[in-house]
Amino acid sequence: MEGIFGTVEFQMSLLLFVALAGYLLASRINQSAVVGEILVGLVVGPSVLGLITYTDFVASIAHLGAVILLFVIGLEFEIKEIFQVKYGIIGLVGVIVPWIGGYWISLLFGFSTVSAIFIGTALTATSIAITANILKELGKLDTEVAKAIIGAAVIDDILSLIALSAVSDIVTGTISLTSISRLVIIAIIFVAGGAWIGRNYVSKLIVKMDESDIAGKYPEFVFIFAMMFAFFYAMCAELIGLSAIVGGFIAGVSFVGVNLKRSRNLREGAEYLQMIFAAVFFVSLGILADVHQLTVPILGFLVVLTLVAIITKVVGCAIPGRLTGLCGKDSLILGFGMAPRGEVAMIVALIGLEQGVIGQEVYVVIILMSLLTTLITPIIYRNWLYKGEYCTYPQGEP
Amino acid sequence: MEGIFGTVEFQMSLLLFVALAGYLLASRINQSAVVGEILVGLVVGPSVLGLITYTDFVASIAHLGAVILLFVIGLEFEIKEIFQVKYGIIGLVGVIVPWIGGYWISLLFGFSTVSAIFIGTALTATSIAITANILKELGKLDTEVAKAIIGAAVIDDILSLIALSAVSDIVTGTISLTSISRLVIIAIIFVAGGAWIGRNYVSKLIVKMDESDIAGKYPEFVFIFAMMFAFFYAMCAELIGLSAIVGGFIAGVSFVGVNLKRSRNLREGAEYLQMIFAAVFFVSLGILADVHQLTVPILGFLVVLTLVAIITKVVGCAIPGRLTGLCGKDSLILGFGMAPRGEVAMIVALIGLEQGVIGQEVYVVIILMSLLTTLITPIIYRNWLYKGEYCTYPQGEP
Repeated sequence: MEGIFGTVEFQMSLLLFVALAGYLLASRINQSAVVGEILVGLVVGPSVLGLITYTDFVASIAHLGAVILLFVIGLEFEIKEIFQVKYGIIGLVGVIVPWIGGYWISLLFGFSTVSAIFIGTALTATSIAITANILKELGKLDTEVAKAIIGAAVIDDILSLIALSAVSDIVTGTISLTSISRLVIIAIIFVAGGAWIGRNYVSKLIVKMDESDIAGKYPEFVFIFAMMFAFFYAMCAELIGLSAIVGGFIAGVSFVGVNLKRSRNLREGAEYLQMIFAAVFFVSLGILADVHQLTVPILGFLVVLTLVAIITKVVGCAIPGRLTGLCGKDSLILGFGMAPRGEVAMIVALIGLEQGVIGQEVYVVIILMSLLTTLITPIIYRNWLYKGEYCTYPQGEP
Repeated sequence: MEGIFGTVEFQMSLLLFVALAGYLLASRINQSAVVGEILVGLVVGPSVLGLITYTDFVASIAHLGAVILLFVIGLEFEIKEIFQVKYGIIGLVGVIVPWIGGYWISLLFGFSTVSAIFIGTALTATSIAITANILKELGKLDTEVAKAIIGAAVIDDILSLIALSAVSDIVTGTISLTSISRLVIIAIIFVAGGAWIGRNYVSKLIVKMDESDIAGKYPEFVFIFAMMFAFFYAMCAELIGLSAIVGGFIAGVSFVGVNLKRSRNLREGAEYLQMIFAAVFFVSLGILADVHQLTVPILGFLVVLTLVAIITKVVGCAIPGRLTGLCGKDSLILGFGMAPRGEVAMIVALIGLEQGVIGQEVYVVIILMSLLTTLITPIIYRNWLYKGEYCTYPQGEP
């Protein structure tokens, strides 16, 4: 019997079952599906029932899920609308303020300077997967504030990468201005160059494929190519140290407005993939967190750190958002939209643990802080900032 | 650099790239996409270039791919059209003749009786994934002969399972009529009962879901449920010893004719998943076979065994097919359609190797025989039995 529970069918079936339970819970408590999925993931994971563990297979599918999700979201964005100086300012302030907050509060709780630097870094990066999914659910992806969130979050991711690299260098004592500036240049080249190549060459290439014999014979060809390209860009992003989802997003942006005649619909296909894969991704976030590690003092630190994480990000983004022209409510939507840390903070925590800079408790605190920040945004959106607005998940087009 | 090549993005990107190369090759040599994918998989796998190895991740995705493929195919079949006495006869004769052929030729080549029994068993099971995909490509799934192939192959799979179990019992000396008849009863209960529950309860359940609030809020809910159900049935099939794809197929059959109003399109979604996953499955078949293990005498046995495998299956299925009312050409289509052994023979080989009944060379011979039989059918179909007929992969419906 043991064997069957290790099979991929069992795991997929159970993960999707858990995701469905998450949908039902979300519907009952009138929250975003993401909140339901994470909460039910927490219940079935090691924290409570221990039915599912975070196996390599779950990790793989979840990882692909985040990439596919951002690819789908990228498909709805015009590149020029995202990369603007004002979003750069929002991203920059939204990285500096949480970093200072995390550093300061850690010192106050008696952690070493190096630990405090790491905790501060874990607070810098935004995970847009969650916010973007909620905005998608609410049908708000085409708003000004959504563009600000995505634009600032991409820049934020680049800045966090630099912070992470700088911290690693501080720990190993090899920090230099050259290595940091090289990293900045590589990241900018990838994001700008990748989008430029995608828009000007790859999108034209798939239109050519669509007009060719191959698409006439095999209408799935272009779709497979597009997904291959998304994973390829995700790999490139990871190769240079950015998070893979940035690559997925840039690949999606490349194909905005592409009109296919003979091939299967790219966006529709990617959306169907996203439904299955992203469900696994959100459930896996709940599975990842094991609350057993928490003691009372650590719990206190967790609560304070989570509050600091949310407040510093909201303040650090809302104020520059307001100053660069958003209205008051939109500034708050922006601030809370940037608050979820998600897998980026988890990666920072993992690196810190592996380098021996932070202990097991701090690791768990960062994981749970990250999880809590992902739960807050959907709740704030649904019950306050977008109160009364129902899900309008886009229906499939013909 | 090593690290990045182990990431799932890299593997997915490379696998899909290889699949695309397979499409281009297939288009160039005017063959089914499956043939192109397997051949290019062979070239990039350990046999020639060694660019991709059969990692756990590749195995997982490929396995899910076969399940999803059969689920999609099941969606086009009426249950009553498949389970007919005449297909039972075709399936039965189509198992007995290859078994005798494999047993006899192995003895002739000097293998032990136990090895010969194992090789005979490896020749019994049909893998319909390949044939069904080609019929789908050719737009022939709604023909009488396609129903005969699928119906006989499902029964064939049950019979092969029984043969495999009997062989294992012979090896361990625990064979009994009771254990075999229990296996037969369980298999029949699963296939008939699973289809009955699916048609009468689960399909009605998803229609109810579709009419409920939950589908109004989350149009992806029913689709996630359907895929969860497909993996669940696949797991059940594997649990009782059938191959997982039979479960996927029965799940698909359950949803035939279901009409959804508020939810995303089930069949369309499953087809998009299939495009990505099944591409990985077919490429993986090529990766699995490592031709380096072949010596000249083993190569001779491989050629003879492959011929025996094809001839016995064609004869063993075409004759009862002809006798139960198919025309001459359709009988041949049936016979060649049943010839691919695919992953079922590979599983038999793996069990034999693990039990120490067959050696490494026989293992490789069975793997390669299985691969060759999967290559023959598309070639025979495209160049003889369905000559001049182009792919008509179904276009997406609104």
